[in-house]
Amino acid sequence: MSHTYEFARPALTVDVVVFALDEDDLKVMLIQRDLPPYEGAWALPGGFVRVEETLDDAARRELSEETGLRDIYLEQLYTAGQLDRDPRERVVTVAYYALVNLAGHAVQASTDARNAAWFGMNDLPPLAFDHEQILKMAHERLRTKVRYQPIGFELLPERFTLRQLQHLYEVILDRELDKRNFRKKVLGMEIVKETGEIEKDVSHRAARLYRFDKRKYDRLMKQGLHFEI
Amino acid sequence: MSHTYEFARPALTVDVVVFALDEDDLKVMLIQRDLPPYEGAWALPGGFVRVEETLDDAARRELSEETGLRDIYLEQLYTAGQLDRDPRERVVTVAYYALVNLAGHAVQASTDARNAAWFGMNDLPPLAFDHEQILKMAHERLRTKVRYQPIGFELLPERFTLRQLQHLYEVILDRELDKRNFRKKVLGMEIVKETGEIEKDVSHRAARLYRFDKRKYDRLMKQGLHFEI
Repeated sequence: MSHTYEFARPALTVDVVVFALDEDDLKVMLIQRDLPPYEGAWALPGGFVRVEETLDDAARRELSEETGLRDIYLEQLYTAGQLDRDPRERVVTVAYYALVNLAGHAVQASTDARNAAWFGMNDLPPLAFDHEQILKMAHERLRTKVRYQPIGFELLPERFTLRQLQHLYEVILDRELDKRNFRKKVLGMEIVKETGEIEKDVSHRAARLYRFDKRKYDRLMKQGLHFEI
Repeated sequence: MSHTYEFARPALTVDVVVFALDEDDLKVMLIQRDLPPYEGAWALPGGFVRVEETLDDAARRELSEETGLRDIYLEQLYTAGQLDRDPRERVVTVAYYALVNLAGHAVQASTDARNAAWFGMNDLPPLAFDHEQILKMAHERLRTKVRYQPIGFELLPERFTLRQLQHLYEVILDRELDKRNFRKKVLGMEIVKETGEIEKDVSHRAARLYRFDKRKYDRLMKQGLHFEI
Protein backbone atom coordinates (compact mmCIF):
# COMPACT_ATOMS: atom_id res chain seq x y z
CA MET A 1 0.00 0.00 0.00
CA SER A 2 1.42 3.35 -0.97
CA HIS A 3 1.22 6.56 1.05
CA THR A 4 0.50 10.04 -0.20
CA TYR A 5 1.47 13.33 1.46
CA GLU A 6 0.79 16.94 0.54
CA PHE A 7 4.49 17.83 0.69
CA ALA A 8 7.54 15.79 -0.27
CA ARG A 9 9.20 14.09 2.71
CA PRO A 10 12.77 13.03 3.24
CA ALA A 11 13.15 9.32 3.96
CA LEU A 12 14.30 8.64 7.53
CA THR A 13 16.86 6.01 8.47
CA VAL A 14 18.97 5.02 11.47
CA ASP A 15 22.61 3.97 11.35
CA VAL A 16 24.55 2.45 14.21
CA VAL A 17 28.25 2.60 15.00
CA VAL A 18 29.01 -0.35 17.26
CA PHE A 19 32.35 -0.21 19.02
CA ALA A 20 34.00 -3.12 20.77
CA LEU A 21 37.37 -3.67 22.35
CA ASP A 22 39.67 -6.62 21.89
CA GLU A 23 43.20 -7.24 23.09
CA ASP A 24 44.82 -4.68 20.84
CA ASP A 25 42.36 -2.50 19.16
CA LEU A 26 39.10 -0.64 19.03
CA LYS A 27 36.79 -2.50 16.63
CA VAL A 28 33.72 -1.43 14.72
CA MET A 29 30.93 -3.59 13.34
CA LEU A 30 30.26 -3.32 9.60
CA ILE A 31 27.89 -5.07 7.26
CA GLN A 32 28.34 -5.75 3.56
CA ARG A 33 25.58 -4.35 1.40
CA ASP A 34 23.82 -6.79 -0.92
CA LEU A 35 21.69 -4.22 -2.74
CA PRO A 36 22.41 -1.02 -4.66
CA PRO A 37 23.48 1.66 -4.06
CA TYR A 38 27.01 0.74 -3.00
CA GLU A 39 26.27 -2.95 -3.60
CA GLY A 40 29.06 -5.07 -2.12
CA ALA A 41 30.48 -2.15 -0.14
CA TRP A 42 30.81 -2.15 3.65
CA ALA A 43 28.50 0.07 5.64
CA LEU A 44 27.23 0.74 9.12
CA PRO A 45 24.30 -1.41 10.14
CA GLY A 46 21.04 0.49 9.74
CA GLY A 47 17.91 1.01 7.71
CA PHE A 48 14.59 2.76 7.34
CA VAL A 49 12.59 3.89 10.35
CA ARG A 50 9.07 2.47 10.39
CA VAL A 51 6.30 4.93 11.05
CA GLU A 52 5.13 2.97 14.09
CA GLU A 53 8.47 2.54 15.89
CA THR A 54 10.62 4.96 17.87
CA LEU A 55 14.10 5.88 16.64
CA ASP A 56 15.73 3.85 19.42
CA ASP A 57 13.58 0.84 18.54
CA ALA A 58 14.47 1.19 14.87
CA ALA A 59 18.18 1.25 15.75
CA ARG A 60 17.82 -1.84 17.95
CA ARG A 61 15.76 -3.69 15.35
CA GLU A 62 18.17 -2.98 12.50
CA LEU A 63 21.15 -3.93 14.61
CA SER A 64 19.54 -7.16 15.65
CA GLU A 65 18.38 -8.04 12.11
CA GLU A 66 21.67 -7.25 10.45
CA THR A 67 24.21 -8.34 13.04
CA GLY A 68 22.41 -10.40 15.69
CA LEU A 69 23.57 -7.92 18.38
CA ARG A 70 20.99 -7.44 21.13
CA ASP A 71 20.65 -5.77 24.54
CA ILE A 72 23.47 -3.35 24.11
CA TYR A 73 24.11 0.20 25.26
CA LEU A 74 22.93 2.59 22.52
CA GLU A 75 23.18 6.35 22.47
CA GLN A 76 22.04 8.84 19.87
CA LEU A 77 24.96 10.56 18.16
CA TYR A 78 23.60 13.13 15.71
CA THR A 79 21.34 13.37 12.70
CA ALA A 80 22.91 13.77 9.27
CA GLY A 81 20.87 15.59 6.68
CA GLN A 82 23.18 16.64 3.84
CA LEU A 83 21.27 16.80 0.57
CA ASP A 84 23.38 14.35 -1.41
CA ARG A 85 24.29 11.74 1.16
CA ASP A 86 22.23 9.03 -0.57
CA PRO A 87 22.21 8.78 -4.38
CA ARG A 88 18.63 7.44 -4.43
CA GLU A 89 16.84 10.38 -2.89
CA ARG A 90 16.86 12.66 0.11
CA VAL A 91 17.55 10.51 3.13
CA VAL A 92 18.04 11.87 6.64
CA THR A 93 19.70 9.47 9.06
CA VAL A 94 19.73 9.42 12.83
CA ALA A 95 23.11 8.03 13.83
CA TYR A 96 23.62 6.04 17.02
CA TYR A 97 26.63 4.59 18.66
CA ALA A 98 26.87 1.55 20.80
CA LEU A 99 29.51 -0.02 22.99
CA VAL A 100 29.76 -3.73 23.51
CA ASN A 101 31.95 -6.14 25.34
CA LEU A 102 33.19 -8.54 22.65
CA ALA A 103 33.20 -11.49 25.00
CA GLY A 104 29.51 -11.22 25.77
CA HIS A 105 28.15 -10.65 22.29
CA ALA A 106 28.60 -13.23 19.57
CA VAL A 107 27.95 -11.89 16.11
CA GLN A 108 25.78 -14.19 14.11
CA ALA A 109 25.09 -14.50 10.42
CA SER A 110 22.49 -11.81 9.85
CA THR A 111 18.92 -12.67 9.00
CA ASP A 112 19.25 -10.46 5.93
CA ALA A 113 22.02 -12.78 4.73
CA ARG A 114 24.51 -9.97 4.66
CA ASN A 115 28.02 -10.33 5.92
CA ALA A 116 28.58 -8.75 9.30
CA ALA A 117 32.09 -8.45 10.71
CA TRP A 118 34.32 -6.56 13.13
CA PHE A 119 36.98 -4.28 11.65
CA GLY A 120 39.88 -2.65 13.46
CA MET A 121 39.59 1.15 13.50
CA ASN A 122 43.03 1.28 11.89
CA ASP A 123 42.09 -1.16 9.18
CA LEU A 124 38.78 0.00 7.73
CA PRO A 125 37.50 -0.70 4.22
CA PRO A 126 35.99 2.14 2.15
CA LEU A 127 32.48 2.77 3.44
CA ALA A 128 29.17 3.44 1.67
CA PHE A 129 27.32 6.77 1.87
CA ASP A 130 28.70 9.25 4.44
CA HIS A 131 29.39 6.42 6.86
CA GLU A 132 33.07 7.22 7.15
CA GLN A 133 32.10 10.66 8.40
CA ILE A 134 29.54 9.26 10.84
CA LEU A 135 32.10 6.77 12.12
CA LYS A 136 34.65 9.53 12.60
CA MET A 137 32.15 11.58 14.55
CA ALA A 138 31.28 8.58 16.73
CA HIS A 139 34.96 7.97 17.41
CA GLU A 140 35.45 11.59 18.44
CA ARG A 141 32.40 11.47 20.67
CA LEU A 142 33.72 8.32 22.32
CA ARG A 143 37.11 9.94 22.94
CA THR A 144 35.51 13.02 24.44
CA LYS A 145 32.93 11.23 26.53
CA VAL A 146 35.31 8.70 27.93
CA ARG A 147 37.17 11.58 29.56
CA TYR A 148 34.27 12.92 31.56
CA GLN A 149 31.88 9.99 31.82
CA PRO A 150 32.73 6.40 32.61
CA ILE A 151 31.02 5.32 29.44
CA GLY A 152 33.84 2.98 28.56
CA PHE A 153 32.88 0.52 31.26
CA GLU A 154 30.34 -0.86 28.80
CA LEU A 155 33.25 -2.19 26.79
CA LEU A 156 34.58 -4.31 29.64
CA PRO A 157 33.39 -7.52 31.26
CA GLU A 158 31.41 -6.93 34.47
CA ARG A 159 34.49 -7.77 36.54
CA PHE A 160 37.74 -6.37 35.28
CA THR A 161 41.29 -5.67 36.36
CA LEU A 162 42.72 -2.17 36.56
CA ARG A 163 45.11 -3.23 33.79
CA GLN A 164 42.11 -3.95 31.55
CA LEU A 165 40.55 -0.63 32.47
CA GLN A 166 43.74 1.26 31.68
CA HIS A 167 44.07 -0.61 28.39
CA LEU A 168 40.55 0.46 27.47
CA TYR A 169 41.42 4.12 28.00
CA GLU A 170 44.70 3.76 26.15
CA VAL A 171 43.01 2.23 23.13
CA ILE A 172 40.22 4.82 23.01
CA LEU A 173 42.47 7.81 23.64
CA ASP A 174 45.21 6.31 21.46
CA ARG A 175 48.02 7.15 23.89
CA GLU A 176 49.82 5.52 26.78
CA LEU A 177 48.84 6.47 30.30
CA ASP A 178 51.00 6.45 33.38
CA LYS A 179 50.02 3.39 35.42
CA ARG A 180 50.43 4.96 38.85
CA ASN A 181 48.56 8.16 37.99
CA PHE A 182 45.79 6.25 36.31
CA ARG A 183 45.22 3.99 39.30
CA LYS A 184 45.37 6.88 41.73
CA LYS A 185 42.72 8.79 39.78
CA VAL A 186 40.38 5.87 39.24
CA LEU A 187 40.57 4.60 42.81
CA GLY A 188 40.45 8.16 44.19
CA MET A 189 37.07 8.77 42.58
CA GLU A 190 35.74 5.61 44.20
CA ILE A 191 33.69 4.66 41.18
CA VAL A 192 35.22 1.21 40.94
CA LYS A 193 34.91 -1.28 43.76
CA GLU A 194 36.97 -4.30 44.64
CA THR A 195 35.01 -7.50 44.24
CA GLY A 196 37.26 -9.51 46.56
CA GLU A 197 38.04 -11.84 43.67
CA ILE A 198 41.14 -12.25 41.56
CA GLU A 199 41.76 -13.22 37.96
CA LYS A 200 41.71 -16.91 37.09
CA ASP A 201 43.67 -18.93 34.57
CA VAL A 202 46.25 -16.27 33.80
CA SER A 203 49.95 -16.89 33.25
CA HIS A 204 51.02 -13.67 35.02
CA ARG A 205 50.34 -12.89 38.67
CA ALA A 206 46.56 -12.85 39.16
CA ALA A 207 45.27 -9.30 39.62
CA ARG A 208 42.34 -8.09 41.67
CA LEU A 209 38.99 -7.88 39.95
CA TYR A 210 36.95 -4.70 40.23
CA ARG A 211 33.47 -3.69 39.23
CA PHE A 212 31.98 -0.33 38.33
CA ASP A 213 29.97 1.35 41.12
CA LYS A 214 27.12 2.91 39.16
CA ARG A 215 25.25 4.24 42.19
CA LYS A 216 28.30 6.03 43.51
CA TYR A 217 28.97 7.42 40.08
CA ASP A 218 25.41 8.74 39.67
CA ARG A 219 25.70 10.43 43.06
CA LEU A 220 28.98 12.08 42.11
CA MET A 221 27.64 13.22 38.74
CA LYS A 222 24.83 15.09 40.48
CA GLN A 223 27.41 16.89 42.58
CA GLY A 224 29.27 17.86 39.43
CA LEU A 225 31.96 15.22 39.13
CA HIS A 226 34.45 15.45 36.35
CA PHE A 227 35.67 12.01 35.49
CA GLU A 228 39.01 13.06 34.19
CA ILE A 229 41.65 10.75 32.81
CA MET B 1 1.29 18.62 -5.79
CA SER B 2 1.09 15.56 -3.58
CA HIS B 3 3.82 12.96 -3.12
CA THR B 4 3.44 9.22 -2.96
CA TYR B 5 5.82 6.75 -1.33
CA GLU B 6 5.80 2.98 -1.10
CA PHE B 7 6.08 3.05 2.71
CA ALA B 8 4.59 5.46 5.23
CA ARG B 9 7.06 8.15 6.31
CA PRO B 10 7.26 10.14 9.52
CA ALA B 11 7.06 13.88 8.98
CA LEU B 12 10.35 15.63 9.80
CA THR B 13 10.59 18.95 11.65
CA VAL B 14 13.22 21.07 13.35
CA ASP B 15 12.78 22.92 16.65
CA VAL B 16 15.16 25.47 18.06
CA VAL B 17 15.88 26.39 21.68
CA VAL B 18 17.35 29.88 21.63
CA PHE B 19 19.03 30.97 24.86
CA ALA B 20 20.01 34.52 25.71
CA LEU B 21 21.34 36.21 28.80
CA ASP B 22 20.14 39.43 30.33
CA GLU B 23 21.10 41.13 33.59
CA ASP B 24 19.47 38.59 35.84
CA ASP B 25 18.39 35.55 34.03
CA LEU B 26 18.78 32.99 31.31
CA LYS B 27 16.06 33.64 28.72
CA VAL B 28 14.53 31.44 26.06
CA MET B 29 12.73 32.49 22.89
CA LEU B 30 9.19 31.19 22.43
CA ILE B 31 6.54 31.74 19.81
CA GLN B 32 2.79 31.61 20.23
CA ARG B 33 1.08 29.12 17.92
CA ASP B 34 -1.71 30.47 15.74
CA LEU B 35 -2.83 27.11 14.33
CA PRO B 36 -3.94 23.82 15.84
CA PRO B 37 -2.76 21.69 17.48
CA TYR B 38 -2.02 23.65 20.66
CA GLU B 39 -3.45 26.81 19.10
CA GLY B 40 -2.60 29.80 21.26
CA ALA B 41 -0.01 27.86 23.27
CA TRP B 42 3.65 28.83 23.44
CA ALA B 43 6.16 26.65 21.66
CA LEU B 44 9.74 26.52 20.46
CA PRO B 45 10.28 28.11 17.06
CA GLY B 46 10.42 25.43 14.37
CA GLY B 47 8.64 23.74 11.51
CA PHE B 48 8.76 21.19 8.72
CA VAL B 49 12.00 20.36 6.91
CA ARG B 50 11.77 20.87 3.19
CA VAL B 51 13.04 18.06 1.06
CA GLU B 52 15.56 20.35 -0.68
CA GLU B 53 17.14 21.96 2.41
CA THR B 54 19.59 20.66 5.00
CA LEU B 55 18.54 20.33 8.63
CA ASP B 56 20.72 23.29 9.63
CA ASP B 57 19.19 25.41 6.87
CA ALA B 58 15.69 24.43 7.95
CA ALA B 59 16.47 25.46 11.55
CA ARG B 60 17.90 28.80 10.39
CA ARG B 61 14.98 29.44 8.06
CA GLU B 62 12.32 28.69 10.66
CA LEU B 63 14.09 30.79 13.25
CA SER B 64 14.37 33.70 10.89
CA GLU B 65 10.75 33.41 9.69
CA GLU B 66 9.27 33.07 13.13
CA THR B 67 11.46 35.32 15.25
CA GLY B 68 13.59 37.45 12.92
CA LEU B 69 16.76 36.01 14.53
CA ARG B 70 19.60 35.58 12.04
CA ASP B 71 23.29 34.73 11.96
CA ILE B 72 23.39 33.01 15.29
CA TYR B 73 25.32 30.11 16.71
CA LEU B 74 23.28 26.90 16.22
CA GLU B 75 24.11 23.40 17.36
CA GLN B 76 22.21 20.18 16.94
CA LEU B 77 20.91 18.84 20.23
CA TYR B 78 19.18 15.54 19.59
CA THR B 79 16.34 14.05 17.58
CA ALA B 80 13.07 13.25 19.31
CA GLY B 81 11.02 10.43 17.86
CA GLN B 82 8.45 9.33 20.47
CA LEU B 83 5.38 7.95 18.76
CA ASP B 84 2.82 10.30 20.30
CA ARG B 85 4.68 13.59 20.48
CA ASP B 86 2.40 15.25 17.90
CA PRO B 87 -1.37 14.59 17.95
CA ARG B 88 -1.65 14.98 14.16
CA GLU B 89 0.57 12.16 13.06
CA ARG B 90 4.04 10.70 13.51
CA VAL B 91 6.46 13.62 13.56
CA VAL B 92 10.17 13.26 14.24
CA THR B 93 11.91 16.49 15.20
CA VAL B 94 15.56 17.43 15.08
CA ALA B 95 16.13 19.77 18.01
CA TYR B 96 18.76 22.52 17.90
CA TYR B 97 19.96 24.97 20.45
CA ALA B 98 21.28 28.43 19.86
CA LEU B 99 22.98 31.05 21.99
CA VAL B 100 22.61 34.74 21.33
CA ASN B 101 23.77 37.96 22.84
CA LEU B 102 20.55 39.86 23.59
CA ALA B 103 22.12 43.22 22.82
CA GLY B 104 23.05 42.26 19.29
CA HIS B 105 19.83 40.59 18.20
CA ALA B 106 16.56 42.49 18.14
CA VAL B 107 13.52 40.24 17.93
CA GLN B 108 11.08 41.42 15.36
CA ALA B 109 7.44 40.68 14.80
CA SER B 110 7.55 37.40 12.93
CA THR B 111 6.59 37.20 9.27
CA ASP B 112 4.15 34.47 10.20
CA ALA B 113 2.31 37.01 12.38
CA ARG B 114 2.91 34.93 15.46
CA ASN B 115 3.98 36.42 18.74
CA ALA B 116 7.63 35.87 19.53
CA ALA B 117 9.01 36.73 22.97
CA TRP B 118 11.76 36.03 25.49
CA PHE B 119 10.80 34.17 28.66
CA GLY B 120 12.89 33.74 31.81
CA MET B 121 13.83 30.11 32.41
CA ASN B 122 12.24 30.42 35.85
CA ASP B 123 9.04 31.87 34.45
CA LEU B 124 7.98 29.64 31.56
CA PRO B 125 4.43 29.18 30.27
CA PRO B 126 3.13 25.65 29.55
CA LEU B 127 4.61 24.53 26.23
CA ALA B 128 3.11 22.71 23.25
CA PHE B 129 4.14 19.17 22.22
CA ASP B 130 7.19 17.77 24.05
CA HIS B 131 8.85 21.17 23.97
CA GLU B 132 9.26 21.36 27.72
CA GLN B 133 11.30 18.17 27.55
CA ILE B 134 13.39 19.46 24.64
CA LEU B 135 13.99 22.71 26.49
CA LYS B 136 15.06 20.84 29.61
CA MET B 137 17.49 18.78 27.57
CA ALA B 138 18.91 21.90 25.95
CA HIS B 139 19.36 23.50 29.36
CA GLU B 140 21.21 20.46 30.65
CA ARG B 141 23.41 20.38 27.57
CA LEU B 142 24.22 24.04 28.05
CA ARG B 143 25.15 23.46 31.70
CA THR B 144 27.36 20.54 30.83
CA LYS B 145 29.02 22.11 27.83
CA VAL B 146 29.72 25.40 29.49
CA ARG B 147 31.94 23.51 31.92
CA TYR B 148 34.26 22.01 29.35
CA GLN B 149 33.87 24.26 26.31
CA PRO B 150 33.80 28.04 26.28
CA ILE B 151 30.49 27.88 24.46
CA GLY B 152 29.01 30.55 26.70
CA PHE B 153 31.08 33.28 25.07
CA GLU B 154 28.40 33.39 22.38
CA LEU B 155 26.07 34.87 24.96
CA LEU B 156 28.32 37.86 25.65
CA PRO B 157 29.13 40.98 23.67
CA GLU B 158 32.42 40.70 21.76
CA ARG B 159 34.17 42.71 24.46
CA PHE B 160 33.20 41.88 28.01
CA THR B 161 34.33 42.33 31.58
CA LEU B 162 35.34 39.43 33.81
CA ARG B 163 32.35 40.35 35.96
CA GLN B 164 30.06 39.77 32.95
CA LEU B 165 31.80 36.47 32.19
CA GLN B 166 31.41 35.29 35.77
CA HIS B 167 27.77 36.36 35.77
CA LEU B 168 27.19 34.26 32.65
CA TYR B 169 28.58 31.17 34.34
CA GLU B 170 26.62 31.85 37.51
CA VAL B 171 23.37 32.17 35.59
CA ILE B 172 23.93 29.06 33.51
CA LEU B 173 25.20 26.92 36.37
CA ASP B 174 22.69 28.46 38.76
CA ARG B 175 25.16 28.92 41.61
CA GLU B 176 27.55 31.58 42.85
CA LEU B 177 31.22 31.27 42.00
CA ASP B 178 34.15 32.54 43.98
CA LYS B 179 35.43 35.68 42.23
CA ARG B 180 39.12 35.09 42.87
CA ASN B 181 39.07 31.43 41.86
CA PHE B 182 37.05 32.19 38.77
CA ARG B 183 39.43 34.88 37.57
CA LYS B 184 42.46 32.77 38.31
CA LYS B 185 41.07 29.86 36.27
CA VAL B 186 39.92 31.93 33.33
CA LEU B 187 43.07 34.02 33.08
CA GLY B 188 45.25 30.97 33.76
CA MET B 189 43.91 29.21 30.68
CA GLU B 190 44.76 32.23 28.57
CA ILE B 191 41.66 31.93 26.47
CA VAL B 192 40.57 35.49 27.16
CA LYS B 193 42.71 38.43 26.14
CA GLU B 194 42.81 42.00 27.40
CA THR B 195 41.68 44.43 24.74
CA GLY B 196 43.41 47.42 26.36
CA GLU B 197 40.02 49.10 26.66
CA ILE B 198 37.81 49.73 29.66
CA GLU B 199 34.06 49.95 30.17
CA LYS B 200 32.36 53.20 29.27
CA ASP B 201 29.36 54.96 30.79
CA VAL B 202 29.22 52.91 33.94
CA SER B 203 28.44 54.25 37.40
CA HIS B 204 30.90 51.91 39.14
CA ARG B 205 34.65 51.87 38.54
CA ALA B 206 35.21 51.03 34.87
CA ALA B 207 36.53 47.50 34.47
CA ARG B 208 38.89 46.12 31.83
CA LEU B 209 37.35 44.71 28.68
CA TYR B 210 38.42 41.30 27.45
CA ARG B 211 37.78 39.27 24.35
CA PHE B 212 37.74 35.56 23.72
CA ASP B 213 40.88 34.15 22.06
CA LYS B 214 39.43 31.54 19.74
CA ARG B 215 42.75 30.55 18.15
CA LYS B 216 44.38 29.92 21.48
CA TYR B 217 41.34 27.96 22.57
CA ASP B 218 41.36 25.76 19.46
CA ARG B 219 45.04 25.05 20.01
CA LEU B 220 44.44 24.06 23.62
CA MET B 221 41.49 21.85 22.69
CA LYS B 222 43.70 19.85 20.36
CA GLN B 223 46.11 19.29 23.21
CA GLY B 224 43.25 18.06 25.36
CA LEU B 225 42.27 21.10 27.38
CA HIS B 226 39.56 20.78 29.93
CA PHE B 227 37.87 24.10 30.32
CA GLU B 228 36.76 23.62 33.87
CA ILE B 229 34.81 26.10 35.91
